Amino acid sequence: MAPRICLLILSLYLFAGISSQSDEYDATIRTMEEFSGYPIHEPVLRDSSSSSLSVDTETLQRQIDELSTFSDTPAPSVTRILYSEKDVQARGFVKNLMSISGLSVREDAVGNIFGRWVGSEPGLPPVSTGSHIDAIPYSGKYDGVVGVLGAIEAINVLKRSGFKPKRSLEVVMFTSEEPTRFGISCLGSRLLAGSKELGQLLKRTVDGQNISFSDAAKFAGYTNNEDFSSVVLEKGTYSAFVELHIEQGPILEEEAISIGVVTAIAAPASIKVDFEGNGGHAGAVLMPKRNDAGLAAAELALAVEKHVLESGSIDTVGTVGILELHPGAINSIPSKAHLEIDARDIDERRRNLVIDKIHQSALSISKARNVELSEFKIVNQDPPALSEESITKATESACQELNMPYKKMISRAYHDSLFMARICPMGMIFIPCYKGYSHKPEEFAAPQDIANGVRVLALTFSKLSVS
Amino acid sequence: MAPRICLLILSLYLFAGISSQSDEYDATIRTMEEFSGYPIHEPVLRDSSSSSLSVDTETLQRQIDELSTFSDTPAPSVTRILYSEKDVQARGFVKNLMSISGLSVREDAVGNIFGRWVGSEPGLPPVSTGSHIDAIPYSGKYDGVVGVLGAIEAINVLKRSGFKPKRSLEVVMFTSEEPTRFGISCLGSRLLAGSKELGQLLKRTVDGQNISFSDAAKFAGYTNNEDFSSVVLEKGTYSAFVELHIEQGPILEEEAISIGVVTAIAAPASIKVDFEGNGGHAGAVLMPKRNDAGLAAAELALAVEKHVLESGSIDTVGTVGILELHPGAINSIPSKAHLEIDARDIDERRRNLVIDKIHQSALSISKARNVELSEFKIVNQDPPALSEESITKATESACQELNMPYKKMISRAYHDSLFMARICPMGMIFIPCYKGYSHKPEEFAAPQDIANGVRVLALTFSKLSVS
Repeated sequence: MAPRICLLILSLYLFAGISSQSDEYDATIRTMEEFSGYPIHEPVLRDSSSSSLSVDTETLQRQIDELSTFSDTPAPSVTRILYSEKDVQARGFVKNLMSISGLSVREDAVGNIFGRWVGSEPGLPPVSTGSHIDAIPYSGKYDGVVGVLGAIEAINVLKRSGFKPKRSLEVVMFTSEEPTRFGISCLGSRLLAGSKELGQLLKRTVDGQNISFSDAAKFAGYTNNEDFSSVVLEKGTYSAFVELHIEQGPILEEEAISIGVVTAIAAPASIKVDFEGNGGHAGAVLMPKRNDAGLAAAELALAVEKHVLESGSIDTVGTVGILELHPGAINSIPSKAHLEIDARDIDERRRNLVIDKIHQSALSISKARNVELSEFKIVNQDPPALSEESITKATESACQELNMPYKKMISRAYHDSLFMARICPMGMIFIPCYKGYSHKPEEFAAPQDIANGVRVLALTFSKLSVS
Repeated sequence: MAPRICLLILSLYLFAGISSQSDEYDATIRTMEEFSGYPIHEPVLRDSSSSSLSVDTETLQRQIDELSTFSDTPAPSVTRILYSEKDVQARGFVKNLMSISGLSVREDAVGNIFGRWVGSEPGLPPVSTGSHIDAIPYSGKYDGVVGVLGAIEAINVLKRSGFKPKRSLEVVMFTSEEPTRFGISCLGSRLLAGSKELGQLLKRTVDGQNISFSDAAKFAGYTNNEDFSSVVLEKGTYSAFVELHIEQGPILEEEAISIGVVTAIAAPASIKVDFEGNGGHAGAVLMPKRNDAGLAAAELALAVEKHVLESGSIDTVGTVGILELHPGAINSIPSKAHLEIDARDIDERRRNLVIDKIHQSALSISKARNVELSEFKIVNQDPPALSEESITKATESACQELNMPYKKMISRAYHDSLFMARICPMGMIFIPCYKGYSHKPEEFAAPQDIANGVRVLALTFSKLSVS
């Protein structure tokens, strides 16, 4: 896929470079979708042969609401962290729904959950779909969840319509798409797609409470977690993977379009940084004798913003979502500061250039403030992924048959699809969400928009199953 | 006391203003003590009449070590937070030592603990001494503790020497000198010195876990905490108060001087700041659409440093010891940021000017970043305190009789003495500590230095008792 990615990125980059001269910050005018020049496909009014695909919108919404109650923070926020008690309860909830839908359920060593509807030719590689149900602290109830509960409902839709799959259809609930607990995003899909280094890394990974990955997994009932080779799926295990997800951006809502057909997923990277100074008493240590790790962190946070803005492209984003001071007392100079930085772009080279600049800033801040840069670790630096044309075509056909307006778009958020693309052809289906809000309690997708997504997923699924 | 403070501060300020032109940041050359022009008093070799004052250094060290084990973090760090289980255990330890030394023990409604050795004229206002035993997260075992356990040992020293006090002698262990849990420094001594607003404030104060002050106090066994008027001590309750403490600065160690005689305590202020923005997904929300509360906090932290350095005096210090981001996930734009700022100076006016500038910066950052400044609260903004000459003279005489080199100095850290000065004549005795380290695990005072401090305290105490 590499040459195609390069070509796409190159053309986007050139275009972005020209545009950014005149109007660098007006995101409402120059969205990525406009760079790409993709047209919006309006529905053609005609009698659809797929009108029998009816979604039980009410039940699906009730399930989404019920799943949201497995949370460590009060509603409307949702906090569901990997292998926590609530995560375990939520997993039980999903497995139960899979069973009710007549799927045969299995779990792997890391807790990826699979529900299969066996097709008429069970020897063929199945078509799969799925997403995640873990939720970062104080987030919402739709991110990931729509792609798991919606996928189970898509199976129900197809069953109710009398459809019989040729290839088996499989719903996957991936373990820990969010990096909250162990700092590793897309843990389940990453392992499943064959990341050998990750298997090794997990043996020495601990969370913020110094609980090992192994102990945390055991708490959740996953006791066979010394060797993750059994999790890996070979290339060709699936004939296709397609994920339903809320957009997590404002475009579909603003343009009143039902469906986004994802053509590529932006490339995320995450970095952990630690500064260390001497700390000391906030009254007694005079300013010239200080080497304040907290101020080094503050400078670096602002440097991240500066380098991102300097990239010259609206598509470069960078965030310091975590900034922790030690010991964290008002009358104590911070002796340690820990930052976690997220940087993304649709252009991998440009994103990596920003990361280099952040590293240079960390070094120079460390020197200027006489603070030790004790860690600058690039936790992951993933390449982008392109959707497979056969899948986007199937989704486009589904939209046309269902009379739904759609547009092709790029996913700025990463998803498990990024890693599934390593082992099989991948595609994604986006639905609108309120103001593009995500990762906060105000996240919302309308029941009708979810139902639209489920219908498109079901029809795409059926097309891929018989191909 | 006000005119004396103003005069002292004015002369210091003028001197600082001249010196800072040429060499603003070389603290090793221009210490506050050099500004003040105080001479160092070398010991005069002579036969001391006070050689009978022998300290049980070994037992005292063992007690300090044992008290340090009541900690929520592993040794060598100490973390002992107000009304926690470890705090309750440590309180029991102190009360037991007071009883063993034959003191009559009482506690007030907020948990200040008093141990009294009744003098031959119990109708006279007693002389008191004391300090605190609470410890900020990951700090050391000497801050405060030397002034509590050392004071009990000073009583033992006097008893062993055959001394009989005229005025009663009282050791006080103050509740929560550190502001860790409820953001209020010197809680016990502040209440005791008659802060009426504080009594009201405590009724609606909660900690970071949303536990009310009242519930926390109840957990520790202080159930009568609806009305703190019983805690207040009238002016004249004590004839004098003198506190033994580690210096928390490097001067005594660097100059090899046994005792610091404190002439004034610098004026502390603390501020809480909250910024709020919209948060959102770190991948999906483009940079121009962001209003990142974390970056506002980072800017303000650097502005604090800038305004402090601009004050033109080496004596102005400012610290952001707490900076917390919400929700605190790598892939989530901070929607809230909370800072706690500590600002101090020996010149109250100059310190308040810095606070004004910090407030202006908070407002302009809020505006520039379209982030709401939802709180800017000056939690306390205390005036400095001067030691009483009668007490410093008594301590100087004690040093001379014990053949110990001493120097007069200013306390840059605040202490319970700051508030005791509101109700009685106050003085402080400093001893050297390793590199001036405090509020971190490396905090250390040599047993011999502690013993020196205890002897000077005992002799000062005896002098004040008979005056």
